Amino acid sequence: MRPLILITNDDGVAAKGLGTLCEVAGEFGDVVVMAPERNASGKGLSLTSERPLRVYEVRKDGGISVYACDGTPVDCVKLAVEHFCPRKPDLILSGINHGSNSSINVLYSGTMGAVIEASVMGFCAIGFSLLNHSHEADFEPSVPYVRHIIDRVLVQGLPEGVSLNVNIPRLPAADIKGIRVCCEAKAMWKDSFEKRVDPIGRPYYWLTGKFLCDNPPSDSDETALREGYVSVVPIHSDYTHYAAIDKINNMMQ
Amino acid sequence: MRPLILITNDDGVAAKGLGTLCEVAGEFGDVVVMAPERNASGKGLSLTSERPLRVYEVRKDGGISVYACDGTPVDCVKLAVEHFCPRKPDLILSGINHGSNSSINVLYSGTMGAVIEASVMGFCAIGFSLLNHSHEADFEPSVPYVRHIIDRVLVQGLPEGVSLNVNIPRLPAADIKGIRVCCEAKAMWKDSFEKRVDPIGRPYYWLTGKFLCDNPPSDSDETALREGYVSVVPIHSDYTHYAAIDKINNMMQ
Repeated sequence: MRPLILITNDDGVAAKGLGTLCEVAGEFGDVVVMAPERNASGKGLSLTSERPLRVYEVRKDGGISVYACDGTPVDCVKLAVEHFCPRKPDLILSGINHGSNSSINVLYSGTMGAVIEASVMGFCAIGFSLLNHSHEADFEPSVPYVRHIIDRVLVQGLPEGVSLNVNIPRLPAADIKGIRVCCEAKAMWKDSFEKRVDPIGRPYYWLTGKFLCDNPPSDSDETALREGYVSVVPIHSDYTHYAAIDKINNMMQ
Repeated sequence: MRPLILITNDDGVAAKGLGTLCEVAGEFGDVVVMAPERNASGKGLSLTSERPLRVYEVRKDGGISVYACDGTPVDCVKLAVEHFCPRKPDLILSGINHGSNSSINVLYSGTMGAVIEASVMGFCAIGFSLLNHSHEADFEPSVPYVRHIIDRVLVQGLPEGVSLNVNIPRLPAADIKGIRVCCEAKAMWKDSFEKRVDPIGRPYYWLTGKFLCDNPPSDSDETALREGYVSVVPIHSDYTHYAAIDKINNMMQ
């Protein structure tokens, strides 16, 4: 039996990057897609418990069932695995995201929220992102790398508790130098809320922000991407800061 | 000048646990509150970028400014620091949550999303949760522990990149045995979506779930809580699985 590959994203079911990922995944196995019906960027691991979820089948393309859900990427993974996959998935993919999920962006990313959820549920999972926010981004240069990484993971599996955060530089195919496995760079968003006033005089606040990551370490994803490599960061889902346990224990006395 | 303490939560601005946290924090410093206007449980590190945010001042109690925001806990932290705090906060608190945020619940928790955001922004931050979901939960037994931990952190600070996830067992004051610094337990939610049919025949899906954590290790938060201790887990914000880098590097060849 061919592998079953479940695919989601956070840009929504109509996103171009989702289509590219489906095409590549279809070379390897049977594909089921469940994605948010609209943009769910920045939803992290948000899930929906205060209301029920709706699902509708968008299309059936050459054997690929594509469902839209009015929840988050995490909801899509949970619900698709239980109710919409004909068997247990062998691999769960998310993306290809329109825009970077390198460095600390993994914290907020709905694309990566789905991957972390899948990993906690015990599945092999990979998130793919291209460093181009445009709706019309060119995903063709990403294809050989997406294909290679899916192949490696289907053949070899992933260590328990490990999933992958893959980011692809915005470069022509000939200028991408290869794959580099690395750690996430420390960084921060210098946020700034732009205060505006509505037509009846009440204030509102638009989030804007500037990504700050000066001098990232040589073994980080930011460096890899700036040097023209596809970055692959193995990720876990344990927030414990083990090295700080003794120090905090002393503090608490 | 007294320390400035910014407080948020995910249960919403009207939650009882938020009130308790404000009272205790007020013993130590000047307090500003910005919390979601309604329940934002399960929002993780979700943030709002596709629409602007609204804020209104709910009340001014004895010098405490309390603001409600129509965004997520992460939005509250970002926006309050920039526009609603009279100076840079010395400490950012979240809670007291109505319900547990131990183990993997930290991944989905809006309460802890705010804490992780605050830590990424460079602030000392602590999340407090009581293992009682009730709106009318009794927070009195929590108070001495909340007070002690705030005191320790204000006096000694926290190591860079470390914040605290504090969970308090649902026990009478006399039965709480003390504080234990620990790691988060591995666990999973056995989710199950209950499929129902609306009055015009269309299906919808309600998320239900069962928290599974059998035989947690002795040094974990789940064990501490089951044995009657307040659990304190030091947390970080780096998803890199460092130990897997070499293995994934070999796989990618």
